[in-house]
Amino acid sequence: MSTLITNIGQLVTNDPAYDGTPLGIMNDAALVVSDGEIEWIGPAAGAPHADELIDAEGRAAIPGFVDSHAHLMFGGDRAEEFAARMSGKPYTAGGIRTTVAATREATDDDLTARAQALTDEMRRQGTTTVEIKSGYGLTVDDEARALRLARELTPETTYLGAHVVSPDYADRPEEYVELVCGAMLAACAPYSRWVDVFCEDGAFGEDASRTILRAGMDAGLLPRIHANQLGPGPGVQLAVELGAASADHCTHLSDADVDALASGDTVATLLPGAEFSTRAVYPDARRLLDAGVTVALASDCNPGSSYTSSLPFCIAVAVRDMKMTPAEAMWSATAGGAQALRRDDVGVLAPGKAGHLVILDAPSYIHLVYRPGVPLVHRVIA
Amino acid sequence: MSTLITNIGQLVTNDPAYDGTPLGIMNDAALVVSDGEIEWIGPAAGAPHADELIDAEGRAAIPGFVDSHAHLMFGGDRAEEFAARMSGKPYTAGGIRTTVAATREATDDDLTARAQALTDEMRRQGTTTVEIKSGYGLTVDDEARALRLARELTPETTYLGAHVVSPDYADRPEEYVELVCGAMLAACAPYSRWVDVFCEDGAFGEDASRTILRAGMDAGLLPRIHANQLGPGPGVQLAVELGAASADHCTHLSDADVDALASGDTVATLLPGAEFSTRAVYPDARRLLDAGVTVALASDCNPGSSYTSSLPFCIAVAVRDMKMTPAEAMWSATAGGAQALRRDDVGVLAPGKAGHLVILDAPSYIHLVYRPGVPLVHRVIA
Ligand SMILES: [Zn+2]
Ligand SMILES: [Zn+2]
Repeated sequence: MSTLITNIGQLVTNDPAYDGTPLGIMNDAALVVSDGEIEWIGPAAGAPHADELIDAEGRAAIPGFVDSHAHLMFGGDRAEEFAARMSGKPYTAGGIRTTVAATREATDDDLTARAQALTDEMRRQGTTTVEIKSGYGLTVDDEARALRLARELTPETTYLGAHVVSPDYADRPEEYVELVCGAMLAACAPYSRWVDVFCEDGAFGEDASRTILRAGMDAGLLPRIHANQLGPGPGVQLAVELGAASADHCTHLSDADVDALASGDTVATLLPGAEFSTRAVYPDARRLLDAGVTVALASDCNPGSSYTSSLPFCIAVAVRDMKMTPAEAMWSATAGGAQALRRDDVGVLAPGKAGHLVILDAPSYIHLVYRPGVPLVHRVIA
Repeated sequence: MSTLITNIGQLVTNDPAYDGTPLGIMNDAALVVSDGEIEWIGPAAGAPHADELIDAEGRAAIPGFVDSHAHLMFGGDRAEEFAARMSGKPYTAGGIRTTVAATREATDDDLTARAQALTDEMRRQGTTTVEIKSGYGLTVDDEARALRLARELTPETTYLGAHVVSPDYADRPEEYVELVCGAMLAACAPYSRWVDVFCEDGAFGEDASRTILRAGMDAGLLPRIHANQLGPGPGVQLAVELGAASADHCTHLSDADVDALASGDTVATLLPGAEFSTRAVYPDARRLLDAGVTVALASDCNPGSSYTSSLPFCIAVAVRDMKMTPAEAMWSATAGGAQALRRDDVGVLAPGKAGHLVILDAPSYIHLVYRPGVPLVHRVIA
C-alpha cells in the first residue's frame, strides 16, 4: 500500500541536500510513502503513481514533531495550584506530592487513558514521536507500572525514579538512591530505553546523579538528564561526561557549560513551556546556537510546571522569547528532537526514513510562529 | 426549537449573581437555549425538558469569546517580512503598503473568502462575536468595499480609513484627512457601526484624530481608537474626552492616562498578540486593573503585527506576561470584549442573553492558561 502526497507548496525535509540549508526546503514537492517509509521524494511534476493520493493543495508540509521530553504517566491535575501561582496567591498544597499521591491511587486504566488522551492530543497538533517518563510513582511497583504502561504507547520510555526523593524516604535520601539504583531499576529496566535524573538543588546532587545514571547505563539504559533548570549546577557537565543524549532545560549555564555542550554530542533540549508556565526566565537559545550547540525543543508536558502538549506553541515562544529564528525553531522541534532521542529514522523526510509528516493549514512553516496559538495542523500522516 | 446543554461541570456565566464574583461560576450546571436566546439557566439536577439534548459530560463551558479588535479585510500575507524581523535580518519591503497594494488588487471574492476563513477559524477557537475593521484600502471605493463585504460577516464593522495616510497622499496628509472625513466617510458610513483612527506618531496626531472621530460621530458612528501603542501620546485621553467605547493597545500610559480611563467608561482593550509578534514590551494590565479600569482582551488579528486569531492564546499570554489572573483574563476576553463593543447581549450567560457558549475539552476555564497553545474547544454553540 503506497500513498502519494502531492501539491505540497513548501516541503520542509530537514535534509540539507535539497537546498543547502538545515531545513532542506523543496517547493512544489511530492513524496510517496510505502509501508510507513518514504519511498520517493521530489518535484510534484515528476511524481510516480501510487495506490492512494493525498492532494495538499499547495499547503506546506513538515516532518512530524519529535517531542523528546514529556511526563505523561500521572493521575490528577493541579489547575488550582497553577491558578493560585499565576494570581500571586499563596498555595499550601503539596506540589509534586499531590501528583505522586494521585498517581499511586490511579488504576492502570486511569493512567493509560490519561497518557493515551495526551498522546492523541499531541498527534492532533503534529507530534508523531513522543518520549514518556515515569517519575510520579516513586515506589518499585508504581515506577515499573508506569513504564510498563508507557511502553504500550511509545518505544521512547524513560525511567525517572530519580524525579525527586520519594516522600517515603524524606529523611533518608541515600537509601532512596540505593533503591533507585537497585530493586527499582531492576523492575523498570525491562520497560525502559532511557535513564534520567532530576539533577538540581533539592532533588539529586552531582554524586547521586552520577551514581544513578551509571547504574542505569550498567543495566543497558541510555542516559539523559534534567539539568540546570532552576539554577547553576553540575548537571550539564555531567551529561557531557557520561555522553548523555540530551541535557534538558539548560536555563542557567556558565560559559564552561556552553563550551562542554559545544564540544560533546549532547543535545541541549530547551523546554519553553516550563518557563512560560512558571513565569521564569527563559533559557538563552541564541547563546547556545551561536556556540555551535545542537538545540532541541520539547514540551515538558506535565501537570505541575508545563501542561502544554503543543510543539507549535513551544516553537512560537522559542522564537519570541529565546531569540531563535523561525527556521531554527522548526528544525529543533523535529530533527533536534530526533537527535535528542538518538533517532535517525524520524525528524527528517528522505527516502528510507519514516513517513511521518504533517500537512499545515498554511503556505509556509513560518506560519507556526507568524500565527501563534492558531491550530494549523491540517492532517497528520504517520 | 430548544436545546438543553447539561452536565456542565463548571459554567462561567459572567453574571455575579451566581457566586458573587465577576465570573459568576456555577458547578454542575445546565442551560436551555431557545431560538438563539438563553431561556433558562440553573443546576443540572433541575433542568427542564427541551427538544434537543447536548451532554457536556462534566466539561467546563464559558461564554463565547468577544473579539472586539480585528483587521480581517486584506489581501496577501507578510510571512517573509515577519520571519526576517524575528531573525534579526533587514527587510526592505513595504510593510503595510504591501498589504494595501494586495488588498486593492484582490477581488471581492478574494477578500470575502479570506475574512470568512479567518472568522471560521476564530469560531473553531471559541470566538462567537467579532469586530472587523477596514483600513487596507485607503481609497473611497476600497474602504467602502471592505466594509460592505465585512457587513455580511458581522454587525460590528469599523471604518478605519484613518489607519495610515494613504501612500497616494504621502506629501499632503491634510488632504487625506479631508477625504477620510468627507467622501470616504459618506461612502463607508452606511456599512459601519464604528469609526476608528490610528492615533500615533507617524499616523494621525491629536487634532487630526479628533477631527476624524468627530466627523464619524456626526455621521452616526460610534468612536473607538488605536491609542498609545508605540509610545506615549494623546490617544487615550482623546478617547475618554469623546466617550469612546474603547481605547485599544494602551501600551504606553502616563498616570494621567490611567486616571482618565478609571474615571470614564472607556474600556482599555489590550492586544497581547501585537506585542508577542513584534517582541515589544507588553501593556501593564495589572496597573490598569488595580486602578479600576475595565480591561478587554482582543486578538488584533492582522497580517502585519499580530496574525493570531486565538483568544485562548491571548488569554495565556495576558496572564503570563501582563500579570492578569486567569479569572481576570477569562472575563476580559468575553464580558470585557462585549463592553468594548457596547453590547449587553453577548459575553454573559443569563436568561434573555444570546445563547453563545463554548464547551471546553477541560474541567475548568483555568485550563485555557494552564494548557497554553492546546486547542481546548470541544464544541461551539452560537
Ligand atoms: Zn521534565
Ligand atoms: Zn489594530
